[in-house]
Amino acid sequence: MKKTLASDNYAGTSPEIIEAIAKVSNGHQGAYGADDATKEAIEMFKRLLKEDIDVFFTMNGTGANVTALSSVCPSYGAVITSSVAHINVDECGAPEKFGGFKILTIEKEDGKISPEDISPFLVNLGEQHWSQPKVVSITQATEYGTVYTCEEIKAIADFAHQNNLLLHVDGARISNAAVSIGATFKEMLVDTGVDFISFGGTKNGLMFGEAVIFLNTSLSENYKYLRKQGMQLLSKMRFISAQFVALFDGDLWKKNAEHANKMAQLLAEGLQKAEGAKVTQKVQANGVFAILDPKVIPILQEQSPFYVWNEQTHEVRLMCSFDTTEEEINQFITTLEKYQVVEA
Amino acid sequence: MKKTLASDNYAGTSPEIIEAIAKVSNGHQGAYGADDATKEAIEMFKRLLKEDIDVFFTMNGTGANVTALSSVCPSYGAVITSSVAHINVDECGAPEKFGGFKILTIEKEDGKISPEDISPFLVNLGEQHWSQPKVVSITQATEYGTVYTCEEIKAIADFAHQNNLLLHVDGARISNAAVSIGATFKEMLVDTGVDFISFGGTKNGLMFGEAVIFLNTSLSENYKYLRKQGMQLLSKMRFISAQFVALFDGDLWKKNAEHANKMAQLLAEGLQKAEGAKVTQKVQANGVFAILDPKVIPILQEQSPFYVWNEQTHEVRLMCSFDTTEEEINQFITTLEKYQVVEA
Amino acid sequence: MKKTLASDNYAGTSPEIIEAIAKVSNGHQGAYGADDATKEAIEMFKRLLKEDIDVFFTMNGTGANVTALSSVCPSYGAVITSSVAHINVDECGAPEKFGGFKILTIEKEDGKISPEDISPFLVNLGEQHWSQPKVVSITQATEYGTVYTCEEIKAIADFAHQNNLLLHVDGARISNAAVSIGATFKEMLVDTGVDFISFGGTKNGLMFGEAVIFLNTSLSENYKYLRKQGMQLLSKMRFISAQFVALFDGDLWKKNAEHANKMAQLLAEGLQKAEGAKVTQKVQANGVFAILDPKVIPILQEQSPFYVWNEQTHEVRLMCSFDTTEEEINQFITTLEKYQVVEA
Amino acid sequence: MKKTLASDNYAGTSPEIIEAIAKVSNGHQGAYGADDATKEAIEMFKRLLKEDIDVFFTMNGTGANVTALSSVCPSYGAVITSSVAHINVDECGAPEKFGGFKILTIEKEDGKISPEDISPFLVNLGEQHWSQPKVVSITQATEYGTVYTCEEIKAIADFAHQNNLLLHVDGARISNAAVSIGATFKEMLVDTGVDFISFGGTKNGLMFGEAVIFLNTSLSENYKYLRKQGMQLLSKMRFISAQFVALFDGDLWKKNAEHANKMAQLLAEGLQKAEGAKVTQKVQANGVFAILDPKVIPILQEQSPFYVWNEQTHEVRLMCSFDTTEEEINQFITTLEKYQVVEA
Repeated sequence: MKKTLASDNYAGTSPEIIEAIAKVSNGHQGAYGADDATKEAIEMFKRLLKEDIDVFFTMNGTGANVTALSSVCPSYGAVITSSVAHINVDECGAPEKFGGFKILTIEKEDGKISPEDISPFLVNLGEQHWSQPKVVSITQATEYGTVYTCEEIKAIADFAHQNNLLLHVDGARISNAAVSIGATFKEMLVDTGVDFISFGGTKNGLMFGEAVIFLNTSLSENYKYLRKQGMQLLSKMRFISAQFVALFDGDLWKKNAEHANKMAQLLAEGLQKAEGAKVTQKVQANGVFAILDPKVIPILQEQSPFYVWNEQTHEVRLMCSFDTTEEEINQFITTLEKYQVVEA
Repeated sequence: MKKTLASDNYAGTSPEIIEAIAKVSNGHQGAYGADDATKEAIEMFKRLLKEDIDVFFTMNGTGANVTALSSVCPSYGAVITSSVAHINVDECGAPEKFGGFKILTIEKEDGKISPEDISPFLVNLGEQHWSQPKVVSITQATEYGTVYTCEEIKAIADFAHQNNLLLHVDGARISNAAVSIGATFKEMLVDTGVDFISFGGTKNGLMFGEAVIFLNTSLSENYKYLRKQGMQLLSKMRFISAQFVALFDGDLWKKNAEHANKMAQLLAEGLQKAEGAKVTQKVQANGVFAILDPKVIPILQEQSPFYVWNEQTHEVRLMCSFDTTEEEINQFITTLEKYQVVEA
Repeated sequence: MKKTLASDNYAGTSPEIIEAIAKVSNGHQGAYGADDATKEAIEMFKRLLKEDIDVFFTMNGTGANVTALSSVCPSYGAVITSSVAHINVDECGAPEKFGGFKILTIEKEDGKISPEDISPFLVNLGEQHWSQPKVVSITQATEYGTVYTCEEIKAIADFAHQNNLLLHVDGARISNAAVSIGATFKEMLVDTGVDFISFGGTKNGLMFGEAVIFLNTSLSENYKYLRKQGMQLLSKMRFISAQFVALFDGDLWKKNAEHANKMAQLLAEGLQKAEGAKVTQKVQANGVFAILDPKVIPILQEQSPFYVWNEQTHEVRLMCSFDTTEEEINQFITTLEKYQVVEA
Repeated sequence: MKKTLASDNYAGTSPEIIEAIAKVSNGHQGAYGADDATKEAIEMFKRLLKEDIDVFFTMNGTGANVTALSSVCPSYGAVITSSVAHINVDECGAPEKFGGFKILTIEKEDGKISPEDISPFLVNLGEQHWSQPKVVSITQATEYGTVYTCEEIKAIADFAHQNNLLLHVDGARISNAAVSIGATFKEMLVDTGVDFISFGGTKNGLMFGEAVIFLNTSLSENYKYLRKQGMQLLSKMRFISAQFVALFDGDLWKKNAEHANKMAQLLAEGLQKAEGAKVTQKVQANGVFAILDPKVIPILQEQSPFYVWNEQTHEVRLMCSFDTTEEEINQFITTLEKYQVVEA
């Protein structure tokens, strides 16, 4: 298949990941996390964030989100999030099915929510007829490729805690966000007051594997049972952990995220200069949203497959990966420009 | 960690598996199963079983069992199985949580159930107060290392179908069973009338990955949604599929299963000859159950870690893997014999 | 407690209901619906609607809605409804918890949805990542006191069926709606093509009890198990059924609904004439929504307790019951007018 | 229908209950429990048990059991109970569906469990693969008509608490049990250390209605949300509460339970004297279990319908109610004896 701008999970894995897996593939190790690589990966997360955290590995992002949220939100609770949040749109109702709770949504053009948006949901606390808000979930970077600043996260965390809510971060593209705002994970997640995170690996070059991290360790006591009951406990867990070790060893996470973000910038700049294209969201991570001339869309898709986000408005989503090349971006822009000239 | 007899998921992966993964790790492929390796793996399953099947890959065995059963058993239904079945004992209630159904259990010394055992559960069909039996689930090979013959499976399938029940096979060690009874997968699963299978990969040398296979394709229509809602849909699915391709290409499945079974036979023979050991189950796959002198258990565990199955009776479970060596088995028996001589 | 305009479930029961209950209170009857009153009530529903229906009694409205919807909508499905629907707002997440499905909502000022509103939800049918729309649910009369015409219901039913969706009616105030549009239940529910109904009794003068009615009997096969599993099966069911017999015997349903609707009309007329009040919704059933001067609200609540619907806009909900009296309405208007004069 | 010995829910209601309902049927009262009768009923429970309790009314017994257990047992938890417990056998899987937890069962001939029976389930506490025992549930009186003494309950409660388990009592026939052992509710439930109860009303002469009572009030904080989400919150709740007021006012509960128990004794004595009948369980409450000559069963059923408990052994269940008469019992025995003479 040709290279695409379809999704960062159309990419394969970084070579370092395959090496890391090969290295741990022989011999016996305790199953279900009682292995050396898991110990090492947890230590690395502690160094990146802080000592007093609890780290659990899961198999995919939906699994991380759903089991993490369900472990702290009762079935009569509610999770407040953006209407475009992955948990609301792209998980086939898994949060509702497994957690039993309600997702309350906020529509924002850039996918970023704020304390003012959350406030209206807090009027009926204590009323038995209404699902009780317990968690705020933000996606960093958002599904629209925008990124929260540390100040914005802190404001949400503070507001959440003042109202007895917890703050969850869906970090499927957490590395792209960290690179984008030039913050360490500690600054972005610990210092801001986030309670728990779905820390993404897959979209940053891993084969598979995410981490659920409780920065507030009073929340993690029963998580292990919910991970198992949520079918997210891998038996040969070393094969997830070793990938995370490789991701943090030598800053592979940063290299991959920086590259993908840079490609998105390049693409956005090209689109902004080109006629007949309009970038619709701030390009802060590795995704570019733009309205294109509907006639050029199939021509461009032929060259680099991508998804049309909105069939009505001809808005498309162009997602760069760790393995997107400058050449691919240039060709994309060249084709777009050539077409516009011909049309004009 | 030293080599163990603890579980076949303490082992790593066959080298062929790592190679297969490395081979597909570059370049873009459609996510969520729209990739070449998945197409190829499905074709291979069709050749092994029959053309008219539906194949879906999941991440782990609990995920395969729970999503498969839930896709055909309504919440008011019941699954009839052995009391030692993995779905009853080892999945932390995931079937009940996700499927909402009831598990009705049958106690059998060798973990193998028969039509006569199922019969008593069928008296109250149609009564609204009682969970309605919908599925019979057998484990092949069983959790006790015993194996159903094709005739036994066919008898259960026939009985199930006569009573409007479906037959599910939890095949976490399906390859070990096939090798044990000298049957092809087609003879064991298709010709006997099985309806759907959790086809295990992990315990046969894969890194991770199982397949849910509907031999009765009228059952599979909605499975894809439940796999996603059950958090079992891997985005970079090629990395599961490629492992199955490697498993069936050149009969790696057979080589691994034959070896593990042979090691179990060797071990059982040694135990039968040794004083102070009593093999408690027929050794038909890769597991050996035996009662050992409680004083020798820690000495043996020191050499090759394993689990005590029953603290009261001192019954232990010794599980051989594709990577267990003859030397390890011989050392185990030697240590056991040496101890007995000293004691005597 | 003084009479209120708070809710139609602040009212007690019609005297006919108590008589009916007393009449069946002695002697033995089959439990769980195998009694004479249940037989009779089902027959009455058949005469009101059509012969080929399936009728089941439940204990309350949430129970009727949740068990009915869950019996036809799989966990990976979605129910499309108005954002103010009782199932979305007032059931503490019971539909999500019990059914596991997702509720997709439409914001409409009058709480009435139309085929055009449903259409946008149908773009991703067949995509495994998205909850699959299976049911449209409308409330008749709506939570805003508005009522669908038969033509409007038929248009939704036709659209639903063209798109493989089912149409559910939450009929907590179904009698008020029937009276309002001058249609028989048959015209409103059968001739329009509704598939299944939560037929309300409580708000029309019963002590408790609702009916789940499948007009499309191909849907009802497994409902009885879900009613039991949903904890909605009453053992001494005669005590619900006898109330429905009394409701339909001698048109008590009509008398009660007509009266409540008439009181709402009277109230609306008074408000429309009064200064400082603005009726905000069409008054088509027994509820009146109006914006009142915030200073007069507590004075009026002192006289007849009611709920403020929106604290920001000072919109209030005034709900009339079968036992609301003309005198109460007149006093309410008088107090309002007196206050306005004083203020002026 | 003729009077039966089929079930205590084939009976209607005590006349006092109808009177009590009629008395509260007029006028407005706060919905969902904000009414005078509910206040009064709660006060009565406090006088019967102790001041520091939390009382919630539900609609039926399955609803009381399932919502109560789910409010304290997480989905990864387990409830330990007798294999014949109503929650295990007769609720169509509602506990598993709503609570998501596992039910672990103990087979005992008389349906009464003891600390020794519970002990084996406690070996794997803390292991993520296994459902974690959280609650012991006993039925008082049991489904076999046997009754726990206060000492037996206290022993279970003490054992439970020593092992971080809670003790639940399914009290569908709690009044029959209290009368049987000559204990007050306080002695039987408070002084023994029970944590929470499903306090039955229906089988003691109520139309419908049960109470969930938390004797350990630290458990009740979130119950109201689960009651609503569990579809057990009645809007016109006064109609349940008023029944409980009538039940405790003037000791109707006692009168009804004493009578039913006495009829069971009479019946048991008759059976013990009769040839061809064998009473199989101690008759301690209002149920009698006996093996009868299979040829006489249909003859007796014709006179007083009842259920055959076990078709193989011809064991029948004869359930007496508050409205069973001495004459009915005598006729039953006479018919049995007459048949035996004829046969002989």
